[in-house]
Amino acid sequence: MTTPWSDLRCIACARRYPATEVRYRCDCGDLLEVRHDLNRLRAESPDLRRRFDERRSIQTGPHASGVWRYHELVLPDLPIDSVVTCGEGNTPLYASAALSAAFDTADLALKHEGENPTLSFKDRGMTSGVSWAQHLGVSHVACASTGDTSAAMAAYAAHARGLEAVVFLPHEKVSPEQLAQPIVYGARTLALDTDFDGCMRLVQAVCERHPIYLLNSMNSFRLEGQKTIGLEVCQQRDWRAPDWFVIPVGNAGNVSALGKGMLEAHALGLIDRLPRIAGVQAKAADPLYRGFQGGFRERVRMDAGETLATAIRIGDPVSHDKAARIIQRFHGVVESVEEAELMDAKAAADRAGVAVCPNSGVALAGLRKLRAAGTIPADASVVVILTAHGMKFSQVDVAYHTGALAHCPPTHPNAPEPIAASIEAVCSTLGLG
Amino acid sequence: MTTPWSDLRCIACARRYPATEVRYRCDCGDLLEVRHDLNRLRAESPDLRRRFDERRSIQTGPHASGVWRYHELVLPDLPIDSVVTCGEGNTPLYASAALSAAFDTADLALKHEGENPTLSFKDRGMTSGVSWAQHLGVSHVACASTGDTSAAMAAYAAHARGLEAVVFLPHEKVSPEQLAQPIVYGARTLALDTDFDGCMRLVQAVCERHPIYLLNSMNSFRLEGQKTIGLEVCQQRDWRAPDWFVIPVGNAGNVSALGKGMLEAHALGLIDRLPRIAGVQAKAADPLYRGFQGGFRERVRMDAGETLATAIRIGDPVSHDKAARIIQRFHGVVESVEEAELMDAKAAADRAGVAVCPNSGVALAGLRKLRAAGTIPADASVVVILTAHGMKFSQVDVAYHTGALAHCPPTHPNAPEPIAASIEAVCSTLGLG
Repeated sequence: MTTPWSDLRCIACARRYPATEVRYRCDCGDLLEVRHDLNRLRAESPDLRRRFDERRSIQTGPHASGVWRYHELVLPDLPIDSVVTCGEGNTPLYASAALSAAFDTADLALKHEGENPTLSFKDRGMTSGVSWAQHLGVSHVACASTGDTSAAMAAYAAHARGLEAVVFLPHEKVSPEQLAQPIVYGARTLALDTDFDGCMRLVQAVCERHPIYLLNSMNSFRLEGQKTIGLEVCQQRDWRAPDWFVIPVGNAGNVSALGKGMLEAHALGLIDRLPRIAGVQAKAADPLYRGFQGGFRERVRMDAGETLATAIRIGDPVSHDKAARIIQRFHGVVESVEEAELMDAKAAADRAGVAVCPNSGVALAGLRKLRAAGTIPADASVVVILTAHGMKFSQVDVAYHTGALAHCPPTHPNAPEPIAASIEAVCSTLGLG
Repeated sequence: MTTPWSDLRCIACARRYPATEVRYRCDCGDLLEVRHDLNRLRAESPDLRRRFDERRSIQTGPHASGVWRYHELVLPDLPIDSVVTCGEGNTPLYASAALSAAFDTADLALKHEGENPTLSFKDRGMTSGVSWAQHLGVSHVACASTGDTSAAMAAYAAHARGLEAVVFLPHEKVSPEQLAQPIVYGARTLALDTDFDGCMRLVQAVCERHPIYLLNSMNSFRLEGQKTIGLEVCQQRDWRAPDWFVIPVGNAGNVSALGKGMLEAHALGLIDRLPRIAGVQAKAADPLYRGFQGGFRERVRMDAGETLATAIRIGDPVSHDKAARIIQRFHGVVESVEEAELMDAKAAADRAGVAVCPNSGVALAGLRKLRAAGTIPADASVVVILTAHGMKFSQVDVAYHTGALAHCPPTHPNAPEPIAASIEAVCSTLGLG
């Protein structure tokens, strides 16, 4: 019996549990996180940078994934051949003069996590979460979600052996775009006679009583895959961390994962210094921003209002405490943006050829405000994390550009132009002689 | 003045034109294709395999693209630093026991071109087409398209310098999904008072009279980027071509590009033997299939009927003659499939965790028929080209799985299950004690 590389540790009381125990919280009630034996890893693998760089040329199999390239840092106890992967990660860093101008940041790159197999960053967390579920030998995985989480869980469960996915969502309150992904990937999709919060309570209750593995945000193993976004950015920059990461914040798992990955990379010598981190929320659901304003002395909970950034419409983030620690540890900041600001920022990125979701627009709008305030200086290197592909939001896009969103008048509208079907009409419209 | 690497050549009369001349057809009326000086390339670069393999580890810039990695074979006269790229290509080859079982093909891989930046294979052709447009110094690019072509053209034009994109589409006959991509990427979107064929006639007429560069299928430079799908598949297979490629056929540009790339790769010694090629069409629009039945002695034109494979609903394919030659040269076949067959094949791939479009379903259904007939033997290595991401077709997915498509009853329906919001109801539904 070899010594495991990893265990679960409570972020509050530091109590430890075996990683193979199915549990989502400490007995004290606080959050758990996966802890790896970094000292042993440093001693046994002093050449991690080179090893990760060599894997860049691998074309197929788990090590070709942008998550499992960092296997030793993700789930080292899981044999590489038993991971469930769709070749996730390896997403582009977009940089151009147009983007720099649009966001007044000379050294700017957008990390587009929407270019993952199910079109959101959730694929990174699900490849680790579902792989761990299969390793534990459970028969079912479940989550409550109307969006990216259920899509990713359903896809990865479809690639696993003998794993049934169950999605909990509110009956008749989801769009075809939200419904299509879980059903095509074959998840049992329970349309429950309740609202989203009711679905969340129910899935937790069912998973407590039955051998169904919960893959919502409180699952610590998802964060292990998710943190590779930051690792991959640093590797793409030849192992130089940017001065700032800017990231949208809802349930706060993504910012927590980013910070955890950066701390581990720094401890292992993969990067020489830590970046700063800016979390950004939509004004309608900005409890972390409000808490940050008060130095995190009190945890703020609120009722989330309406926002077009539906994926981060969360008034009481599950990973609040992890995220608050990360923001403090990284000398970070939290910003909050209005609806018109987030749609305008989204449209500016779209217009530069990088189609993003409204949630990513929140991060981009936050960058604008932090640049205007001088919090992020003009000469800083900045990487913004984009979380989902714009194609998931066609209806919103058309409404915005045609001026149908009353509270978000478009700064640069681009509606279709109805004209007569003649060469003369076309040339006159285009200003051609 | 150095000798150019490439020129344009008529596929019928072999007349040559400079590649820098803006022209879409030979004076004789037939199609042109880009011809590279392969003898010179072979002499000057005997180590192309190694060079392409070394570029696999490049993380940023044009050579990191799955198109421009093969720069010498795509547009060698274009300086690598002036290409317009979104990091397209590098798409996965999906293979699994579930996929092999679903399509009764042991050695099966699905090349998912839907995992490109704008979610279709058109990105590969547009990075070469738009790059060439910028190189020529034109001010406008244009196409008539209600789907993937306009999305890709708009995105790449947004990344170019000083290039305005103009999309021609029929007024009030397109869905938000079809409209959203061109408008968010900032294309001028002309909604014309005519049908799709009217848009196509008009864009050609306008491009003939004005310095607007036409990027519809008759543009030969798009095929140069598009052909890299096949090159990338062979490289992912360590430069072994599969026994068979299976590919959906509409305007027939994709099959023509695939064949051209394979012939060039073979001439250069990148691959040791040629694959066979199976083109597949939807029954509602299968002129190439009908022509193939008659040994291509006559070119068949037809009025396309209704099909869920909307992207290949074409009765008179632009690249017919190129495609017919490729099918013959590669000892290929053409198959035709019913609506229920294509949706069923699509659903089987989706269910195995690879979400695809109905057009890709056509290719998958064709594989089933060719396997059942023994045309493709059980031990053949087969690669199916998937052309777009399933997420572009949410409405169709939901309609199919809920049984709302009368002519396509689902073989394995997966509709949401409306149930009461109680632990008991959930457990009873899932069969848990």
